[in-house]
Formats: sequence, structure tokens, C-alpha cells
Amino acid sequence: MSFLSDLMQSITERGRSLVEQAPWLAGRRDQPLDVLCSALLSNRGEASGVALASTILDRYEALSSERKLHFMLMLVEKFGADMAAVDLAIANYQAKPTHAHLLALHQAAEPRRQELIRRLNLSPMGTQRLVRMREDLFVHEEAHSELAALDADFRHLFSSWFNRGFLVLRPIDWKTPANILEKIIRYEAVHAIRNWDDLRSRLEPADRRCFAFFHPQIVDDPLIFVEVALTVDIATSIDDVLAEKRLQLSPSKANTAVFYSISNCQEGLRGISFGHFLIKQVVEELQRLGLGLKTFVTLSPMPQFAKWVKRERANPDSEYLNSETRHLLDGLDRPDWHKDAALCESLKPLMLGLAAAYVLLARGPGRRMIDPVARFHLGNGARLERLNWAADLSPKGLQQSYGIMVNYLYDLPSIEENHEAFRNNGAIASSGDVRQWLRLLQGLGGRGQSLL
Amino acid sequence: MSFLSDLMQSITERGRSLVEQAPWLAGRRDQPLDVLCSALLSNRGEASGVALASTILDRYEALSSERKLHFMLMLVEKFGADMAAVDLAIANYQAKPTHAHLLALHQAAEPRRQELIRRLNLSPMGTQRLVRMREDLFVHEEAHSELAALDADFRHLFSSWFNRGFLVLRPIDWKTPANILEKIIRYEAVHAIRNWDDLRSRLEPADRRCFAFFHPQIVDDPLIFVEVALTVDIATSIDDVLAEKRLQLSPSKANTAVFYSISNCQEGLRGISFGHFLIKQVVEELQRLGLGLKTFVTLSPMPQFAKWVKRERANPDSEYLNSETRHLLDGLDRPDWHKDAALCESLKPLMLGLAAAYVLLARGPGRRMIDPVARFHLGNGARLERLNWAADLSPKGLQQSYGIMVNYLYDLPSIEENHEAFRNNGAIASSGDVRQWLRLLQGLGGRGQSLL
Amino acid sequence: MSFLSDLMQSITERGRSLVEQAPWLAGRRDQPLDVLCSALLSNRGEASGVALASTILDRYEALSSERKLHFMLMLVEKFGADMAAVDLAIANYQAKPTHAHLLALHQAAEPRRQELIRRLNLSPMGTQRLVRMREDLFVHEEAHSELAALDADFRHLFSSWFNRGFLVLRPIDWKTPANILEKIIRYEAVHAIRNWDDLRSRLEPADRRCFAFFHPQIVDDPLIFVEVALTVDIATSIDDVLAEKRLQLSPSKANTAVFYSISNCQEGLRGISFGHFLIKQVVEELQRLGLGLKTFVTLSPMPQFAKWVKRERANPDSEYLNSETRHLLDGLDRPDWHKDAALCESLKPLMLGLAAAYVLLARGPGRRMIDPVARFHLGNGARLERLNWAADLSPKGLQQSYGIMVNYLYDLPSIEENHEAFRNNGAIASSGDVRQWLRLLQGLGGRGQSLL
Amino acid sequence: MSFLSDLMQSITERGRSLVEQAPWLAGRRDQPLDVLCSALLSNRGEASGVALASTILDRYEALSSERKLHFMLMLVEKFGADMAAVDLAIANYQAKPTHAHLLALHQAAEPRRQELIRRLNLSPMGTQRLVRMREDLFVHEEAHSELAALDADFRHLFSSWFNRGFLVLRPIDWKTPANILEKIIRYEAVHAIRNWDDLRSRLEPADRRCFAFFHPQIVDDPLIFVEVALTVDIATSIDDVLAEKRLQLSPSKANTAVFYSISNCQEGLRGISFGHFLIKQVVEELQRLGLGLKTFVTLSPMPQFAKWVKRERANPDSEYLNSETRHLLDGLDRPDWHKDAALCESLKPLMLGLAAAYVLLARGPGRRMIDPVARFHLGNGARLERLNWAADLSPKGLQQSYGIMVNYLYDLPSIEENHEAFRNNGAIASSGDVRQWLRLLQGLGGRGQSLL
Repeated sequence: MSFLSDLMQSITERGRSLVEQAPWLAGRRDQPLDVLCSALLSNRGEASGVALASTILDRYEALSSERKLHFMLMLVEKFGADMAAVDLAIANYQAKPTHAHLLALHQAAEPRRQELIRRLNLSPMGTQRLVRMREDLFVHEEAHSELAALDADFRHLFSSWFNRGFLVLRPIDWKTPANILEKIIRYEAVHAIRNWDDLRSRLEPADRRCFAFFHPQIVDDPLIFVEVALTVDIATSIDDVLAEKRLQLSPSKANTAVFYSISNCQEGLRGISFGHFLIKQVVEELQRLGLGLKTFVTLSPMPQFAKWVKRERANPDSEYLNSETRHLLDGLDRPDWHKDAALCESLKPLMLGLAAAYVLLARGPGRRMIDPVARFHLGNGARLERLNWAADLSPKGLQQSYGIMVNYLYDLPSIEENHEAFRNNGAIASSGDVRQWLRLLQGLGGRGQSLL
Repeated sequence: MSFLSDLMQSITERGRSLVEQAPWLAGRRDQPLDVLCSALLSNRGEASGVALASTILDRYEALSSERKLHFMLMLVEKFGADMAAVDLAIANYQAKPTHAHLLALHQAAEPRRQELIRRLNLSPMGTQRLVRMREDLFVHEEAHSELAALDADFRHLFSSWFNRGFLVLRPIDWKTPANILEKIIRYEAVHAIRNWDDLRSRLEPADRRCFAFFHPQIVDDPLIFVEVALTVDIATSIDDVLAEKRLQLSPSKANTAVFYSISNCQEGLRGISFGHFLIKQVVEELQRLGLGLKTFVTLSPMPQFAKWVKRERANPDSEYLNSETRHLLDGLDRPDWHKDAALCESLKPLMLGLAAAYVLLARGPGRRMIDPVARFHLGNGARLERLNWAADLSPKGLQQSYGIMVNYLYDLPSIEENHEAFRNNGAIASSGDVRQWLRLLQGLGGRGQSLL
Repeated sequence: MSFLSDLMQSITERGRSLVEQAPWLAGRRDQPLDVLCSALLSNRGEASGVALASTILDRYEALSSERKLHFMLMLVEKFGADMAAVDLAIANYQAKPTHAHLLALHQAAEPRRQELIRRLNLSPMGTQRLVRMREDLFVHEEAHSELAALDADFRHLFSSWFNRGFLVLRPIDWKTPANILEKIIRYEAVHAIRNWDDLRSRLEPADRRCFAFFHPQIVDDPLIFVEVALTVDIATSIDDVLAEKRLQLSPSKANTAVFYSISNCQEGLRGISFGHFLIKQVVEELQRLGLGLKTFVTLSPMPQFAKWVKRERANPDSEYLNSETRHLLDGLDRPDWHKDAALCESLKPLMLGLAAAYVLLARGPGRRMIDPVARFHLGNGARLERLNWAADLSPKGLQQSYGIMVNYLYDLPSIEENHEAFRNNGAIASSGDVRQWLRLLQGLGGRGQSLL
Repeated sequence: MSFLSDLMQSITERGRSLVEQAPWLAGRRDQPLDVLCSALLSNRGEASGVALASTILDRYEALSSERKLHFMLMLVEKFGADMAAVDLAIANYQAKPTHAHLLALHQAAEPRRQELIRRLNLSPMGTQRLVRMREDLFVHEEAHSELAALDADFRHLFSSWFNRGFLVLRPIDWKTPANILEKIIRYEAVHAIRNWDDLRSRLEPADRRCFAFFHPQIVDDPLIFVEVALTVDIATSIDDVLAEKRLQLSPSKANTAVFYSISNCQEGLRGISFGHFLIKQVVEELQRLGLGLKTFVTLSPMPQFAKWVKRERANPDSEYLNSETRHLLDGLDRPDWHKDAALCESLKPLMLGLAAAYVLLARGPGRRMIDPVARFHLGNGARLERLNWAADLSPKGLQQSYGIMVNYLYDLPSIEENHEAFRNNGAIASSGDVRQWLRLLQGLGGRGQSLL
């Protein structure tokens, strides 16, 4: 049943015909944007609503970055809740705390921006355009903390619009439409795709797969995608996975799926959770192929590891280092240290021990795990499976993590349990192998053993 | 591109695998429903959330009508806002009325039911099941006014979930899947479909069309549908349209599309607006067929007309009647009055004048137009085009409107303007023909002329 | 990729626009059909070709049955090969037997009807219309043996057009378009479907499945379909399978798929083989569902069995009967014999022995297996698995086979081998159970033991 | 209805499972190819048939070019008709010339290769592989005239398999799957596509369109495609159409569709007609877009024109040249003649006159129009509309046609009539403009006036 195949068109076309025909708007398109926003909020007709929303977004998008900032600050200032109404609602509620008065208070306290954004969303491609507006907001948020109020509105609305029930998993391959594929090239954030031939080498071979999640309102633009290599045993080096002249594997001989790149595509949706089981869905999809895959594992970077090591080295009270290991780490400061085999040999156990500590023990502000990739996978129910030395010797790999990469294991029967334990108690599932590196670090003088 | 054709499956399957595997839930499925609801609200893991939501809905649906009422009342009592938190948020806000404190107040004042309902929605088929729950609510709402608070939550959430941008227009014909067609049979609310043969006679002939709107979360169940007859000139009698032995018309010879039946399908979505331009979309779809159709018009009932006439006759101060016309109307009390040709002849101008007044002038509580069908079409931007005598002589037609039916005209170039005028000023577009009947009524002694 | 979803439309629309615009045809549509056929054969323009083909088929279809016969006889008489051309080609070939002369002879000897039928096929819906024409031919073929030549042309062309590579297997369920479903109702040839409710009871329950094969040129009309019941163990009685009040089975508990009805839909394709592995494809499709089905088996009628038993009883030299068993069989002549439990008890071993002999040993003209159903399944690679007494006590079942039904087993690993053995040597795969009944018959005095 | 969306898979998968399981083939895969071909012809089982066909094609494709030739010559030698059977059939027919004997003769004279090729076609992807085999044949056909017999078989079968009723028109755009798009890049035969960016510039802008025809058995490989530019008025220069920095046109402002490139994709289908109305279908598709396009015209090369001019100049009896015009044409021999404005000015009328004569009058062997592009469009019912000087100044354009290009006009109301007139009488539709150039040539001394 292809009852939904027209959905995309319906949605991108929605209101298109209304935009040009709104009698109300004639002659008013040039009024100041705050006037148009007020008009949009007070208007009751649908046709002029769609036309107004489109006009506002068209004009917004043509602004300079600075004028965009002013527009957003104006939203914060002028389209908050009506203070007088809030005071009145409070008075009523305090006089008589009924359900109705509480509801009225709730509604009075809602920033009028939220309804404004809902109405802007009615314009053709509205959702996509609002996601872009939030990207603009990020540019200015540090310098202008007032924008936090507007961002709270976006988060609230986007969380509802992008609830995970709407996300659709689709395989991406060499048969995928080119307009999608060019976005895959653009969005790849982990291991850059150089051109169409490079893309093809990741999509067409039978031992390579890719899956993306889409939202029905933004059908030609993925939200997140995963690149997968089918291998014999767990891949421990990204250079092997991406080698240009590698031998292709018959999928029927593979026993392992390695997720070697996961990219979020929409910066404007930062912080909006799509649910914790996207990867699990990919695992189930791969199992449905009937290839006999047994192991599902990532090959992941540790993007903040080198920064953390530097902080610990700079911290005289570091609980992970002593004078001996500090001395050893000085080797990392030499140029091309990774080409010195003897040095590498002596660094390896210490560095892998530190990597284990970095994920299992080290915490940032709010006692939050430092590494975002670890947070993502462990939060999804994966297990910290293996730490790989000399796994990514690209400049970026050396700079971010001294070349170390991580395997997180997705073991279907324990995903839910791991996820619940992590969510509710912060417990981390890890392999004996990884815990062994941590114990080694302790032997080398690092502390933190109480946590094992 | 069939990128979305799997959407349906994704959505109906969503969370299916999570339902059975939640470790948390083992052994707790039998706890009281309010305990489970609290657990659902406080839980942070996604897997057990889906499983809990499913369990709650499964158990709810197995309850008797009375126990369902108790469940809903419990939601109202126990899952409103946290009063202490509201008081604290008010205090903070009054101490320092910042954006942040206002936002905190807004959130504190939100009934916890809303989040609860959002989480229930994560269960497989959750949306459909919650729509059904609102149907249950309607059964009890008159007797239990407290339920209004719960209904406000449903309305708020459904308005967001069913925003018109998501609705998809699909032709329904004899090639449509049978599971959809059986729902068309069931939901037809205006002119009942007797069986599959009757259905076929409305879908298969080339001069008959049908269109339905669907929502991606409820893909096999239409929200609203329209049945259309292609004719030469505007049909003035439903009996002609539905006649069993009628001659079929070659579509290329038709110049008019008559919308002779429009049915809302989901009682649980009562009062949720799908936007005002659904019919306009159908008109555009029909135009795209390239058949050369020039006129788009409904053939509609006036479901409250007879009731209104009775009220006016019982009202000694009616501004539409005088003693002479009152006397004439006594004819309506005779059995089989519509078979008395002379009586009909004398009643016709008076009755059509009253029908014009009923739509154009008469208003109910809140100065709202009485007739729901007129409200729907005029609000959508249609024009009141023609009143037809002896147009529906079925028992239901006679009983509801003394056999009168209405044509509302959808004239594309003026739809938006009519809609805006109606929304913003309550102005009604009408034809000279209809206004002529109203003037005639005034000649017969009815008042209300100032409004012409 | 929905690259092919428009195929249907393309094909049904093909040439539609050409039909009305052929300048050549104006004023000649009323010429005699043989003149139009000659014109179609000699014409070189494509537009007038399509229009001519349509005109000829339109006029043919409006003829009476007798005039249709005359048309077909005319095709045989006037559109055979050109005798003079054949003689010339023979002379050339005999003078110099080159490849070119042989090819010329081949072409000269081809009945011109074949090219005529190919050109008729260009009309919109041409293939379907020609299949109907062959149905008309069957009406007259016994009385008019000349039609065999025309039938040979149809067979040759249909074999090419309906080669099995084009057939598409599709599940049929309650979501299938109604225009297909009404054909399922109409074509069911084994156990009649009474109405839409009966149809629904065979399609909607999770323990019932249906699959049909389609051809791209006749997309809304199945060629053959199979109804399947999922059961625990092999069903031995059709009455159990079709019982109205049966308990539905959860598919995950089923271990067996019973093909209880297989219907050919297009009489006009009689004798055209669609390949021998259609049922195997259904088996593979069922396996892909992942339900854990282990056994795939039919529950089939023996449509010619009763007739054969009567012939054997009437044949004094029957090698399957002796005086004692002949006497026993007299019981079959009593009215309602099947309600006499003692009689049934004594008849059962003899009748099942005869049934085994009927399939395994008895042969018709050309030493061909008598039973068409057995021929179909054994030719497809199935094994004769079980004979069931009192399995179909409907009037039709009693009349055709004294209530006996057969299970043919589709055992995937041996299908190809069975098929090849049957094709190349006529070998029949059978179970020990069935051979046991045959041995019992020999014990009762029937002969034919040499074949065991 | 997506009833056919699986067709592709069905077809590419067909027989896949049979290939590996044929018991018959075990141990015989290495026999000589002629033995395997004989086995394929005599085999009756379907499973081993598919496996045999696959084995033969696998082994054939692994051969060197020379061994492939030997294989094809072997087919000609060993798999013609059975001479003895032909002789017998002739004798029977001559003794008694019945329908049955004639049919027997027809069948006896059919080369056994045809049945062999039909059976090879059963292998997975068989059709595509046989099309490739015919490409191999073309490599050797000149040197080995015996191959004509095999080519006749291919033509006969391909004509039936690729009958135009099966072809499906599909728009190609930037949303088309990448595996199709890379073939568009590869197959473009007229104005080469340099890379993915160049491709995108021809597909993505709203004033550029592309359409391709596909066959259901070769779904991911187009048979023929057309590139279209939407313009204001008829484009007269390809350089304008393909200019990199051109201004894009809003489609609603275009009145003309220019078909500026048409490429056949499958060399192995050379000479197989797909019907004459493919371009007409594209025209109808463009009209359906509702853009208000009024004129449909090609911008085409004349690939043989320069060669023909050279032949005429070398021919002292040319009826198109006299001494004066011969002298003028010597200017074409100068390097960079096209950059000499004065020379161009004087050459233009003569050259356009010759171009008109080349298409309208000049004929090759068998009185066939010389220019293949003209033959294609005029045979399709187009009109020779305009000759454009200095329209393609690329090296290829100058070398093939001295930079001249042609507009053929597709005027829907006269397409069928033009086509029929061309097919049946060789009549060419041309504009007064073109005939004017021809008359000018006569004024300049060229002959051929009798034909005007």
C-alpha cells in the first residue's frame, strides 16, 4: 500500500497555494517584522496566516546575521507572556485554586512566542526553516544569554514535533536519490567523504551498508545516519575499514557489523532526543537481512580524550597520574611520537588505562560523562567493549585521541537492561577486557580503584 | 520516491519490540493503574516507558464503562499540577519576574496529565487508542463536569498532533484496500451505504469520486471523507444522485462536481480543526484530472432546520413568522404532508425563505450560526448558492429539514476572501437567488430585513 | 524505488491516445472484418495500426457467439501462410539449402495469423482481449476441429507472452484493493467463497494467508492464487479448515502451512505453463515470514477419482478389482452411504487403496496420469504424502471423490529432484503411508504390484 | 497501488534459488559449451534448465573475444534447423498441404538457436546478458557474415521481448537513484556530460527536464533518454542551451520545450524499434505538467552532413553544385574558417540550402534518407522546422555538420498524420522556411527542383 507515498509532496506543497492569494496581506508585506508577527498572532483566517508566516520567514532569512539577532531578541522582549494576564491569573488561582484557574494560569504563563512559532510552522517548509533559525540562535547564544528563553521555546516545540514515533529508518545505498546522497556527503562528520566516488565506495559494495533516519516533514534531508562495514570479527582500526584497495567480503561470510561512522545532520536539532533505540533499530534491520551476523559493534572516536589527558597532566592533583606516568606521557609531546615504535610500546598500556578511566570514571560538570560519543552509546544500552591502540592515525585521530578508538557493543538481549540501568543509576556496562586496562592503570599508580 | 511508504509500518510497529522486553516491568503489571501511571511519569528509561504505556492502555481498555470513568476521574484528581510547586513558582515569579521564573511557572502549572498522555502515546498504536479514550470521555462528560479538565488536555495535544500539515488527501475508489473501504461503509454519516454493492456503485462508476484525508499515525483509518458526483449542472436532489438505475455520465461530458456527502470519521477528534481548506484541496485535485469541470458545489443537508422551525413556531415572538405564515406552517403537521402537491406548492416559498433566514440570520448561543454544516462550508470559504425544495424525501431528510437541501458553492478565486471575511467579520457570501428567498420571506411578513 | 509503479497505467493506457486519432481509419471502420484484418497486416504506420486493432476487437466483441465462430474460421482460412510463397521458399531451399533460405522458408511457413494476433495485441488491453477470444474458441473447438490451427497460434504466442519470468507473486489480504478481491471471489474454483464476509474470514485472520500470481500486462486480474491455512500438524479435513466457528491460531504456534485451495483464473490461458515453481515461491515467501513453519502441504481434491472408480467397476477386466471388492463397492450406490458408519468402516481401506492406485498406477490416454491435480503437484516436485478418508463431505466432495482428499507435501530440499525425476522419468515421490494403502489393495485382490 | 513495485526484484531474483540446487548439473559444469547447449535444449526439467542456462552464460562471459566468436559460430553451425526434419516436413507438406503439415514445416524450419536463446533467457538477468552477447556479435559481424543468421534470431526475439507496450516512461531528475544517474552520464551520446556537477546542471534547474524509457526486465538501465530545456522561443544554438552561467528561467515563463539531446543506451538493441511515439509520450508528459508550453521542438545534429558535402564536392556530377558554388565551398578547407565573419556570411545561404537538400532530397542506398537523426524524427511524425547556422561550434559540431543544427517540430495534432504519410509514402513534412533555403540553393545553381 502506497497510501503515504504522496505525503512528502503534500507536506512540502502545503499552503503553497495559500501564500500567493491572501487578500489581507496586499500592501502590508513591508510593515516592520514585529508588526507582522503581532498580526500573525491575532489573525484568525487561515489563508492570510499562511501567507503572513511565509512573508515573515522570507524577510527574516534575507536579514544580515546582526539583524537576525535583533529579530530574535525582539521575539524574546515582545512576545513573552502578557505580565498583566499572568498577574490576573495568579490572583484568580490564589482566590480559588480550581482546575480551570490552574489551566488559565498555565496558558497565561506560556510565552506568546510558542504560539507564534507554531503559526510560523504553517508556512511551506516551515519546520525546516525554523530549524535553521535555531542554528542562527546558536551563533549568538553565548554573547546573549536572553536568547535562552527563545531556545527553551524551540526545544519544547521541536521535542514534540520530532518525537521518535515519527522517525523512519531507511537504507541508503547506491540506488538512493542523488539529492539525498549529496547531503550524506555534506553531513558526514566523522570520516569525511571526499567525492562521489568515495561515497560510492561506502554504499555500493555488498559488505558496506548505510542507514538514515528521516522525519516526514523534512523528507529529503536525513536527521542522522550510520555507516556500517560487514566484517569477519570486530574491526579494530578505521584505516582497515576505509582502505581504498581493500578486498571486498561476501556478505554471507561476514559475522560482524561495525558501525564506523554516525553523524547527526541537523545542527538546529541539537539536544533534541530522537529516542534511545535508533541503533537498535539498525541492528534489527541488519538481522532481518538474514546474513547470519552475530556481533554488532561500533568503531568510535573519543573526541575529548586528548583534551582531558592534557587537563589531567596540567592538574597536579590528578587522581589518574603519578610522577612516573607523568614522565612517560611527556613522550606525547614529541613530534611524530606515534612513529616511534618503542615509545608507542611503552605508552600503550598507560594510554589505554587512561582511556578506560576517561570513560568509566572521569566526570565533567554535573557529574556528567565527558565523552559525548560514549554518552550516546552507553545511554543507548551499548557495552564498552574494547579500546584499540593505533586505530586512527589520521591527523584528526591523533589530535583528538592519540589514535585510540573504541568499540561499543550492541548486544540485543541486554540493550534494554543496560539502557535502564544507565538511565536510572548511571551504571555502565563494560567488558572484562576494558576493566583490565583500568586495573592496569591502578597498578601503574593511578587511583580510582574504589569505583571498580 | 517511496521513501515514506514504510512509514505506516514503522509507526504501527514502533516500540512493539520494546513492549515485551522491559525488565523493569516484570512482576509489576498487576499494580493499581494509578501506581503504574505514576511509575510511567517518573521513569527515565525508554524501554520500560513503552512497556508501561502499553500495559496501562491494555488494562484500561479491558475495563467496564464505569471503571473507565473512574480511571479518567483519577487522572483528573491525581495528575493535575503539583499545587505546592505552583505556589513556589508563583512566589519566585512575584519576587523576581524574569523569563526564567515565568517559564518555571508555566511548566509548574501544566497538568501532569499532559506529560502522562504524551508518554501513553509512545505505546504501539498509542494515538488511536487515546482517540478512543476521548470517545469514552464523551460518554460521561455531561454527568461529570470535572472531565472537562481532562478533555482540555486531549484537545491541546490532539490539536498539535493532528495539525493540518500532516493530513494527506487520497482518492478512494474501487481499487482501494478493502480494510479502508469497510471503514467508509461504517463511517458514512449522511446517506448510509447499505452494503458492498452500494459502496461499489458510489466508487466504481467514472462519474463518481471519493476522497479521504488520512493522518500518518492512523494510516488505515480515514479522518474525513467526501463523496462526489460528476454531473451536468448543479444537482438539486439527492434522490437523483443516488438513484439505483441512473444513467452513467461520461466524465468528459460533466461540467460540475457535486459533493453530496461529507463524513467525519473519528468521534474522538470532535472539535479538533483539520484546517479550513480540505475541500479546496479536493477541488484542486479534481481540477488536476483535466476533466474540464467548471462548478464545484455541495448538496448538503440542514440537520437542525426542522428543530429550529419548531422552536420558532413555538416562540410567540419569533421575528420570522406572523399569524398568516404560522397558519400555513400547520400543514407540516399533517401526516405525509409532502405528498400533497397543492400544500407543497403553497409551503415552498415560505419554507425556502425560512431556510434562507435560518442560515443567514438565525443565531444560537454566543451568536453562533446554528447549522453545523453551514458553519463548516461557509467557514471554509464557500458561498450559500441555492436552496432546493423536495431534494431529500427520505424519512431522515423529511424529519431533519422538511426535505430541503442546500448547495454551497466552492468558487476557487473567492474561497480565501470569503473565508477571511467569515472568520474576521462573520460575513456570509450568498447568491442573489438565496437572498431573493429571504426578501420573499420579508414580503410574507417575516422580519430581519435590516440584515440584508 | 517505485520506478515500476506506473507500469500498470502505462500499459492499460498504451495507445489509448492513438486509437482516436488515426486519420487513415476515418470512414473505413465499417468495412468487413477480413478487410480490416488485411489492412492491419499490410499497414506500416503505427498510429493507424493501433486504431485498426482496437476497431477489429471492438467489433469482434460485439458479435454473437455464432458470428464469432465465423470470424475465427475466417482467420483460419484466410490468414494461414501464403501457399505460393511456401512453395517458392521450398524450391529455393531445395536448390540451395543455406541458412538464409531456411530462414526464409521458416518465415514463409508461419501462418499470417501470428503476425495478425501480434498486431491486435497492440490495442489497449489487447492481451486480455485476446485471452478472452481464446475462451470463445474453446466453446467451438470440439465441433470445429479446424480451430486447432488458430489455437496453436494462440498457444505459441501466449507461451512467450506469459513466460514465467514475468509472473509476480503478491500476498492477497484484507488490505488488497477491492477490485482484485472481487475477482478472488469470482475465480475460487475449489471451495466457493459465498460473499465478502466469507472472503474476509479467509483473508483477515492471522492464521490464514493467500497469494496470487499476476502478469504485468493484466495487473488487476490474477492468473492463479493459493489459499493457505496455518495449522498445528497437517490438516486432514477441509471441513475443519473452513469451519465457521473455528478457534483462530496464533501464527507463532503454527508449524504447518496447508494449501487448501488453488485456482486458475484465466480459462483462456488453459494449457499455458507458468513454470513449475509457483508453489515453491509461495513456500519460500511463507518461510520468509519467520513464523517457524516446518511443513508445507496441500489439502487437495481428486476431481476424477469417482469417475475412474465407476469406469473400473464397469470394466470386467479391471486389474484393481476382484469379485469380492466389487461386491463391497456396491455399498457406494446406496443413498447417503457415507452416513452408514459400519459401511464406511469396511469401505475405507479398499477406497484408500484404490485412491493410491488411481494416482500411482492408473494412466489415461498417452500413459498420462489421470488426475489433473496430482499431475500439477507431482510435476511441481511435491510428494504424495497422505490420503484422507471422510475429508470433504460436501455434495461436490462426495460426488467427485467419495469424500477422500489428498495431502501433497512440498519438501523444499527435494522439490527440484522430485520435479526432475518426474519430468524426465515419470517417477513419483510418495510416502510409505500411501504405498502401504496400495499394498493393502493388493492384499485385497487388486493387481499392479509389479509397479511398487 | 504498488502491486508492481516488486516486479523488479522478482525478475532479477527469478530462478536465483534454482541456479544452485540443480541436482542434474553436479559434475557436468565443465563439459564443452556445445554439449551444455544440447543438454539445455533437450532437458525437460525447469530447475536444471535455469541452472544450465546460468552456467552457459557464466562460462561464455568469461571467454576471450576470439573464443566468444567461436561460440557464436558454433551456435550458427550446430543449432540451426534439423535438415532431415525439414526435408521430411517438406515431403509431408507437399504430399498433403494441410494446416497441420504447414505448421509442422514452420516449426521444423525454425533454427534451434531460437529455442536455445529462449531458454538462456530464463537465467537470472538473462535478457541483459543476451543483449550484451549481441554487442559481442557486432564486433565480429563484418568479418564473419555467417553471424547474420544468429543476428536474425536475436532480432526476432528481441523485437518480441522489447515490444513498445512494455516500455515505461519515467522522469529523471536530481531525485533519481544514483545508480540510474551514473548510467545517464555514461550513455549521453550527443553532448557529453563531464561529471556529477555537469549532470546536476542538466537535471536540477526547474527549466531543465529529462525523461527515460525503461523495460521491466532491465529496470535499472534505461533504453533511451531525452534531455529537455524549457525556453522562451525555439533555441537555435546548443551553446546557449548548455552555457554554464546562463540565467535560469522560471518554468511558468517558458513557452517552448527544446529536446536538445536524445541518446540510445543499449547498443545490443540496435535496430529494434521501440515504436514511433516515444517522443510524443514525452510531449504529452510535459503538457500534463500544466506549464503552458506551446511548442515542442528538437535541437538536433546532422551527424552525416559534412561527410555528404565532401562526397558531393568530390562528385563531378553532383546535382547540387555548380562551379561557382564549388568555388565558394573551398572556403571550408581553410583552418578556422568559422572565425572568418565575411566568409561565414557568404557561405551561410549556400550551406543552409545544401542542408535542406541533404535532408529533403539526398538519398543513400535503397533510396533511404541518409541522416539517421532526420530519419528518426521525421519517421516519428515531426516536421523539419528550421536550419540553424553557427549553432554548434564545438569541434565535434564543426566536424560533423559545419556547425549547423536542425529544429524538428513535434506538433501534436499532426504527428500521427505526418508519421503515416512518411511510413506509407515517404512524404516529409517541412516548414516554408526550410523550403525557402532549398529554393535559394536552386537559384544558386543546384538542381533537384522537380522534387519541390
